[in-house]
Amino acid sequence: MSLDHHVRHFQEELEQLKTRLLEMGGLAEERVRAAVRAVVNRDPVLVEKVLTGDVAINQLHIEVDDRCFKLLALHQPMAVDLRSIVAAVKINSDLERVGDLAVNIAEAVGRYLQHPPLQELVDIPRMAEIAQDMLRDALDAYVRHDMALAQSVLNKDDELDALKTGVFRDLVSHMVRDPGTIEPALDLLLISRHLERIGDHATNIAEDVIFMVSAKDVRHHQD
Amino acid sequence: MSLDHHVRHFQEELEQLKTRLLEMGGLAEERVRAAVRAVVNRDPVLVEKVLTGDVAINQLHIEVDDRCFKLLALHQPMAVDLRSIVAAVKINSDLERVGDLAVNIAEAVGRYLQHPPLQELVDIPRMAEIAQDMLRDALDAYVRHDMALAQSVLNKDDELDALKTGVFRDLVSHMVRDPGTIEPALDLLLISRHLERIGDHATNIAEDVIFMVSAKDVRHHQD
Repeated sequence: MSLDHHVRHFQEELEQLKTRLLEMGGLAEERVRAAVRAVVNRDPVLVEKVLTGDVAINQLHIEVDDRCFKLLALHQPMAVDLRSIVAAVKINSDLERVGDLAVNIAEAVGRYLQHPPLQELVDIPRMAEIAQDMLRDALDAYVRHDMALAQSVLNKDDELDALKTGVFRDLVSHMVRDPGTIEPALDLLLISRHLERIGDHATNIAEDVIFMVSAKDVRHHQD
Repeated sequence: MSLDHHVRHFQEELEQLKTRLLEMGGLAEERVRAAVRAVVNRDPVLVEKVLTGDVAINQLHIEVDDRCFKLLALHQPMAVDLRSIVAAVKINSDLERVGDLAVNIAEAVGRYLQHPPLQELVDIPRMAEIAQDMLRDALDAYVRHDMALAQSVLNKDDELDALKTGVFRDLVSHMVRDPGTIEPALDLLLISRHLERIGDHATNIAEDVIFMVSAKDVRHHQD
């Protein structure tokens, strides 16, 4: 195989890796969206669907890892290519855990639906929206090597964090006012924590993107 | 540099990477232990120490990542060496997040200490013990390439999961019986969730070890 051919082959493989990783992100996001829709619409069928529907994402997780290792072993990439493949390994783990968090949300929704609903879902739908935006933006930033978009994900995490604190306060006052709501309120509390963690995974991805593009480590600048 | 010299140099660098990763694990574990001791001993000074003491672990996190990228770029490792370096990148992330979880625990302990204590800390000290054992065993398994030890970590995660469920039940009944305990009980609930996540990180590490040693993916066998 000529050098030129080798390089072209490598770039094609790298493009395919990105496509598969985006597909993985799409699946993860779809599962989160379904889990949140299940609580908004009080839909036990959707709960069940999320609980049992993780085969595709798990297969893709293994495939993406496999592609990364092959690229590293066969092409011995350097600099930004090396960083983007190692980033793909890490992003792949993050996305798999986002898929697991969709299951955790669905489990909490399943329990929540066994009680009369709380008056309102506090800020949970809003948290879900932000977490999903962050995830989508972080993946777009990876594919486009877009530092500014990655940075915007880091900024949104503060917003999500503030909502989480508000949700916590709202739910505690529900529980204190009416101890009959303790159990369903706890499930909403857990759901809000799972959504926060989805935002954390998006943040991890955004940090990996910034490192990949700039080789500059932003992770502990504010410590 | 002769090939022989190059190989020896690579092996030395790999050993140093492992040493630094173990050091990182030691720091993460120490911070978790301090956070748990803070709740057991009701010690606000220890809370503060955990909240502000993350400089060393964050520096080490950057250093380990840096060593991994240099090893990948300069030595173009193959097979088990390649897998062990990529595993180190992932383990490094897991350990950094364990350090972050120690901060989350300390935050919850800080709030918990503002209330009269619950009668007992339910099974939280026991959960902490198991999570820390899992973390230590997972890292030992990495260094020794010990599949059996890695497998034992996966098994312990079920025990931790069962304790978490028991803690949840105990705390809910505290809250329902005496709504005055809602706020401190919620903080204990969050602490138990953070400990569960430390166990999840240990599980991730153990799975990486099994993949590293056997090149066999155990992650989704039971799905």
